[in-house]
Amino acid sequence: MADPAPPAAIDLILAKRDGRVLTDTEIDWLIASYTAGAVADEQMSALLMAVYFRGMAPGELRAWTSAMISSGERLDLGSVAAPTVDKHSTGGVGDKVSLILAPLVASCGAAVPQLSGRGLGHTGGTLDKLESIPGWRDALSVDEMVAVLNSAGCVICAAGAGLAPADRRLYALRDVTGTVESIPLIASSIMSKKIAEGTAALVLDVKVGSGAFMRELPAARELAQTMVALGAEAGVRTSALLTSMEAPLGRAVGNAVEVEEAVSTLRGAGPPDLVEVTLALAREMLALAGVDADPAAALTDGRALDRYRLMIAAQGGDPDAPLPQARHREVLTVGEGGWLRRLDARAVGVAAWRLGAGRARKEDDVNHAAGVICLAKPGDEVTAGQPVLELRTDDETRFAAAIAALAGAFEIGPEPPATPPLVIERITT
Amino acid sequence: MADPAPPAAIDLILAKRDGRVLTDTEIDWLIASYTAGAVADEQMSALLMAVYFRGMAPGELRAWTSAMISSGERLDLGSVAAPTVDKHSTGGVGDKVSLILAPLVASCGAAVPQLSGRGLGHTGGTLDKLESIPGWRDALSVDEMVAVLNSAGCVICAAGAGLAPADRRLYALRDVTGTVESIPLIASSIMSKKIAEGTAALVLDVKVGSGAFMRELPAARELAQTMVALGAEAGVRTSALLTSMEAPLGRAVGNAVEVEEAVSTLRGAGPPDLVEVTLALAREMLALAGVDADPAAALTDGRALDRYRLMIAAQGGDPDAPLPQARHREVLTVGEGGWLRRLDARAVGVAAWRLGAGRARKEDDVNHAAGVICLAKPGDEVTAGQPVLELRTDDETRFAAAIAALAGAFEIGPEPPATPPLVIERITT
Repeated sequence: MADPAPPAAIDLILAKRDGRVLTDTEIDWLIASYTAGAVADEQMSALLMAVYFRGMAPGELRAWTSAMISSGERLDLGSVAAPTVDKHSTGGVGDKVSLILAPLVASCGAAVPQLSGRGLGHTGGTLDKLESIPGWRDALSVDEMVAVLNSAGCVICAAGAGLAPADRRLYALRDVTGTVESIPLIASSIMSKKIAEGTAALVLDVKVGSGAFMRELPAARELAQTMVALGAEAGVRTSALLTSMEAPLGRAVGNAVEVEEAVSTLRGAGPPDLVEVTLALAREMLALAGVDADPAAALTDGRALDRYRLMIAAQGGDPDAPLPQARHREVLTVGEGGWLRRLDARAVGVAAWRLGAGRARKEDDVNHAAGVICLAKPGDEVTAGQPVLELRTDDETRFAAAIAALAGAFEIGPEPPATPPLVIERITT
Repeated sequence: MADPAPPAAIDLILAKRDGRVLTDTEIDWLIASYTAGAVADEQMSALLMAVYFRGMAPGELRAWTSAMISSGERLDLGSVAAPTVDKHSTGGVGDKVSLILAPLVASCGAAVPQLSGRGLGHTGGTLDKLESIPGWRDALSVDEMVAVLNSAGCVICAAGAGLAPADRRLYALRDVTGTVESIPLIASSIMSKKIAEGTAALVLDVKVGSGAFMRELPAARELAQTMVALGAEAGVRTSALLTSMEAPLGRAVGNAVEVEEAVSTLRGAGPPDLVEVTLALAREMLALAGVDADPAAALTDGRALDRYRLMIAAQGGDPDAPLPQARHREVLTVGEGGWLRRLDARAVGVAAWRLGAGRARKEDDVNHAAGVICLAKPGDEVTAGQPVLELRTDDETRFAAAIAALAGAFEIGPEPPATPPLVIERITT
């Protein structure tokens, strides 16, 4: 060996650690080698931590995202007649928007191919919620997915293992190595899957506030801008709404309880905050898809509900079947009367999680009946002794930990609270 | 599971990443769990990268070092009659000081228990050098080590697997994850082994310059201060000398060639720079050991050489056996006459490494005959065509890469160079 050069992985770690910009070739090699198992987990995790501290230059992020897409297949939705448009939310508490939005936008004439995920931590996952419906299944082949899309106009299913497999491995690694909270890593993870999914347009719902991944507006805005730019560069028409996640969205937080609330909303009886956010996202999606239609009408005249029933049935679910009901319920009441000024989204999310609605580890099951119902929302007037939260679970030993999570979660005052906007900002290229 | 808290390793990674100070209990748990295999390599490497960026508070470093010592045995040198004192060098090019210093200090009345290491990269390892001697062995039991120490007054051997095993695992991980160059990690790695070794006093030779691990004085000073403080806190009398590593130390760089030069030095015919650094370290060691003696005399009257022969023989080596000689030699000459103003230590070290004197990976063998002889040193006057470097190897295909490493390695000028001090600074508590 004339030149005892060290292997390339260590060179790339040192380069990133020392703030040098990686080339496209280096990033392609790194992601391909990691996916193939030729770069070890301990090397990738050190590099990810260096990315956490050093960030990524725009060119690096583009190459990184592109390499993750190239690690797997890219779906071709060319056989779908309607213009395709998808939505991705960065995750919130009580965020059942997808369940309403996909059929709503489909009923207006666009096609919504939504590959979704499961919940981890205090925010729930769309697939976990839909699995409350007897018979419904999330695992579809590409052909099945396209068939549902063509018949119902929308589909919500699990991303197959062939889609951005590098992201799958990287995400699992980030989860155990403290490298989740990095804007370039979050942006490339989300966008690689959405671009590979083959949608022509994409609206991002970037949540901001106590219950969101991004608690502060500047970081949320940076994440949104980063993702919108990545989408545009990959030829996907992309925009983002920054929406508030200080309080739970709607009243139900859990799985079956959120499906029930989504169906009520599709019947025209949704809570105002949920309706407002859903309609704002629907209008954004329809605009990107080039469809001129009023989603508000579709939400009240039953068209969206019809699409929902079609979609659920096409995926094996019975939209009329009763949903699981929790065996045990507890209510929390307010001590004094006044105005509910604050209801902390994160605390409610953690409480629902501890009641069994979420999972601590990927391999855990969720309890579909568990959750929290917000009997009052910020801005409501309450009287002393009035119930404000209802806790539901099949395992009553869980109440104590859930109630502990809710200490200080709501605040009563003599004045009604200010009502900041739910849709905070719109980000486009 | 009422409280779905994530496992502790991830909490400690997040704490370190976010700049929080880890408690003693957390560090004890982390090092013990990592050594036991309960914390995964990918988690530890992410944490090490976070340490690279965040550093360690003094209390964290103390706990980290102490936990590494506690991961294994701590030698008891109580049965050694003479006061014990050791030296550790952070590594340089042509640094054969230990081979001279250990018997020199022993001949003055202190006992030198030197647990040493192998080379990796462009700096050589003391054990690799001594293995050039037929029969000599580095693997001694604790009883054998103490016996050699009592008979010869000094011993240079490999640290057993029971000494700071956490450091052994961590060092291997740092080596492949770009987390070697962190002052707290370097300091705790060196000091955990030296404290566990049981020496009562320790002198650190912290090299500074082109051929050293620390190229700049401020970083070298910080490393020295950090290690001196760790030693003092552990009850080991510790001081450090910062010494120059801009040019190779002495004339020989390799394995057998360095043993030959060490023996010449023990015969009173050593090159002035090597003698100066060795005597400065010897005086520092004797002062810490409380021994009042003049090491310069012992270097010329044969006493140190006698100790060297005793030590080599006690470890199975034949001090009179011929050493391996390289089959192939090449010389590099100067194009113009003048003064040799600069001879780059790192370039010479890399050339010797490429000739076979060093190893690229831990599992590689070294070639004991390979190396570089500096026929001229900075400050020497040279004439056009005069040989300045002699390259030696058993594998002549290696010359090209070695010569390539030497491009620009020396500089001839019309004026003699300034001669900055070899011993730059002394660091005490």
